Amino acid sequence: MSTDDSAIPNFSRGTNGLLPAIAQDATSNRVLMMAWMNAQAFDETLKSGYAVYFSRSRNQLWRKGETSGHQQRVVEIRVDCDADTILLKVEQKGAACHEGFESCFFRTVSADGAAAVADERLVDPNSVYGKKSS
Amino acid sequence: MSTDDSAIPNFSRGTNGLLPAIAQDATSNRVLMMAWMNAQAFDETLKSGYAVYFSRSRNQLWRKGETSGHQQRVVEIRVDCDADTILLKVEQKGAACHEGFESCFFRTVSADGAAAVADERLVDPNSVYGKKSS
Repeated sequence: MSTDDSAIPNFSRGTNGLLPAIAQDATSNRVLMMAWMNAQAFDETLKSGYAVYFSRSRNQLWRKGETSGHQQRVVEIRVDCDADTILLKVEQKGAACHEGFESCFFRTVSADGAAAVADERLVDPNSVYGKKSS
Repeated sequence: MSTDDSAIPNFSRGTNGLLPAIAQDATSNRVLMMAWMNAQAFDETLKSGYAVYFSRSRNQLWRKGETSGHQQRVVEIRVDCDADTILLKVEQKGAACHEGFESCFFRTVSADGAAAVADERLVDPNSVYGKKSS
């Protein structure tokens, strides 16, 4: 983990060395998901040209699409003014969301706080992740 | 702070009750910035119709644009599959970034890790925030 204040991105600014990384569709500009990166995930993203995150629940690198095939080819990387948030413009293969939606942001919240599904599923998550239907 | 697992957004999933909130321009779909919200900031955003964040450095609610005038009128709120990241589609007044750029993501990072400013400044931050030029 870098401790250099001028490092870009500056992983020393993240909690446990993790920074938020936003993935945006390079063509439609739709925001697809938000995940986390540590320095190793970022380096591997740069080198491979495909999005690699750090899974906080599994406590390991998460090579997006390794199981589902739903990889993200990185078209452009941006970093914000404080160098503590990463923006990836990607070509998304399949569905970004593990629930089978194009984007993880498939629900709207209305002014009264009620949530509603606003999008259509692209794929059946059971077919992608090999779960049996009940 | 909610401790209800089905709450949307689910602030109990955030570190210190804070969730990442992404602001996206409702017209251009440009990602403008990423900041943090606690339950109070989210509630005030819903009620006022303008983006309210929680400033980790100042440890208080941050009514975006209160000093600069660069408010964000909220057009749509979305929440992700895990209910732990918020997406605001906004009408941005002025520049989202305190450095005077339209978006905080004004720098690209190339494959060799080098960062470069890719955008033009919209406004002089010294004129907005009342700092004296040196």
